[in-house]
Amino acid sequence: MRCVKCGQKAVINMRAHKLALCKDHFLEWIPAQTERFIEKYRMFSLQERVLVAVSGGKDSLSLWDILLRLGYQADGLYICLGIDGGFGYSDQSQHLTEKFAAERNVVLHVVNVANEYGETIPQLAGRTQRGYDKTCSVCGMTKRHIMNRVASQGDYQVLVTGHNLDDEAATLFGNTLNWLPGYLVRQAPVLEADQPGLVRKAKPLCRIYERDMAAYVLLRGIEYIYDECPYAAGSNSIFYKELLNRLETERPGAKLAFYLSFLQAKADGLFAPRADLKLENIHSCPTCGQPTTAPGECAFCRMLAQARDR
Amino acid sequence: MRCVKCGQKAVINMRAHKLALCKDHFLEWIPAQTERFIEKYRMFSLQERVLVAVSGGKDSLSLWDILLRLGYQADGLYICLGIDGGFGYSDQSQHLTEKFAAERNVVLHVVNVANEYGETIPQLAGRTQRGYDKTCSVCGMTKRHIMNRVASQGDYQVLVTGHNLDDEAATLFGNTLNWLPGYLVRQAPVLEADQPGLVRKAKPLCRIYERDMAAYVLLRGIEYIYDECPYAAGSNSIFYKELLNRLETERPGAKLAFYLSFLQAKADGLFAPRADLKLENIHSCPTCGQPTTAPGECAFCRMLAQARDR
Repeated sequence: MRCVKCGQKAVINMRAHKLALCKDHFLEWIPAQTERFIEKYRMFSLQERVLVAVSGGKDSLSLWDILLRLGYQADGLYICLGIDGGFGYSDQSQHLTEKFAAERNVVLHVVNVANEYGETIPQLAGRTQRGYDKTCSVCGMTKRHIMNRVASQGDYQVLVTGHNLDDEAATLFGNTLNWLPGYLVRQAPVLEADQPGLVRKAKPLCRIYERDMAAYVLLRGIEYIYDECPYAAGSNSIFYKELLNRLETERPGAKLAFYLSFLQAKADGLFAPRADLKLENIHSCPTCGQPTTAPGECAFCRMLAQARDR
Repeated sequence: MRCVKCGQKAVINMRAHKLALCKDHFLEWIPAQTERFIEKYRMFSLQERVLVAVSGGKDSLSLWDILLRLGYQADGLYICLGIDGGFGYSDQSQHLTEKFAAERNVVLHVVNVANEYGETIPQLAGRTQRGYDKTCSVCGMTKRHIMNRVASQGDYQVLVTGHNLDDEAATLFGNTLNWLPGYLVRQAPVLEADQPGLVRKAKPLCRIYERDMAAYVLLRGIEYIYDECPYAAGSNSIFYKELLNRLETERPGAKLAFYLSFLQAKADGLFAPRADLKLENIHSCPTCGQPTTAPGECAFCRMLAQARDR
């Protein structure tokens, strides 16, 4: 297999794109694609300040690397969740993220959940009444809260995450399996800051296959944490990814077509406008000040209070 | 495992319903469920004349059996497609359908495609320019044309087909994988005759698992053609059914939840109304008189003309 651009030996053959590339052309292609999607979906400009949520995994570190290579003003945010899993998951991922930032001399904000709120994510989850998959639910809510807080306090115009195509397709698949209208209508490459106190969110890698991101991180020689979060084992999203991988193996490009045809159908007006997403329904949490959809404390502050009471 | 109704030995355990039943109670339960769905989705009443499209397979023969047991005025329609596949697929299925009708002394209409249009389905498909999966595409179009013609000429108020939950879930899955708005908006347990010349269509088995229909046909001792149509091998729908079966194995009830949550979201107004489905866009085919969405001959008549010219 030869690189279609220069005829040198290809390091990757992307069946969905019918494209084989050598190392150098692949390492150019990924940022070029990312830039195309940043512009196409109007995610952010070179003049805006970008906060990258970095977990220490391959996608978020690669995204940060790509944005820096493309010349964007991208700082990092690492949130220490206090998850050990028998192999120091959080410690390792923090170390790798700090090493990445130090080597490039870029700004990294670090928020430690235990220092800030008195307990780690597993401890908080153990004390609250959120149901099934409760650790992941508490963790997701906490991260969203902290990311939005740091982004708005730091005057960042946009918060970006490393969600890749496989992540987005698995999320879409889950939302479709249960036809969850509120989630279907809101899933997008970019979420405008349409509520006071919210920062715009964007996913620049949303059209790039996970496999291609794995190739990128290896070929760039970026050190990242290989292990998944220990709480992710058996999760719906991993199960959905497996099903979608079976589909992709039989029908190369099917995962991308699933996601893109969804975006197209939505842009063409498939979904009816929803009254429940109107701004007048947004309130400000009396405790933390962040926006919330119901009057009174936001879900995050209620969770913290519940954990303290136990 | 015991029957939850009488404590006798159960013949089936339906995990999605958390319901184990003995033979007698299962053979009562399936028609009772079918009747519930006929009423819930307002498919037809005991006063209306029903035409059942019968292929000789387990679902359509069982549906006819169920409707007769429930006291509906149900006649049959068998369409001989002229498919051999090395084992006389069409001959065998016609024989079994005629035997079923004769044993019960009920009306069966038989339409032979080769007698009516000069050529069998494989011959027609071999001469036309419809693309990939062309035999199935020509066959589907031909069956829809004949079913609607026989139903309207025979003054039937409704045409019913034996599509089960697995069929509907696979169709929905395919339409969702490619986000086909026109198909998503129209998929339903009942399609009203909202266009002049069209007969109402209904799928009374749309909420019953394929596995349960297989148990029904066996326990009722109905002879049916076991083999799939030879052209179905490798089809998208069979592949989608396999994927959905993997999902169902891990998450009993997931297939039903997928279909039902879709119907619910649609009823709740998820989809925007579509201008292109309006009645003013419907024309009458100058050759056959059936309704068509574009001016001029309908797709079926154009296909026949194309086949004749070659």
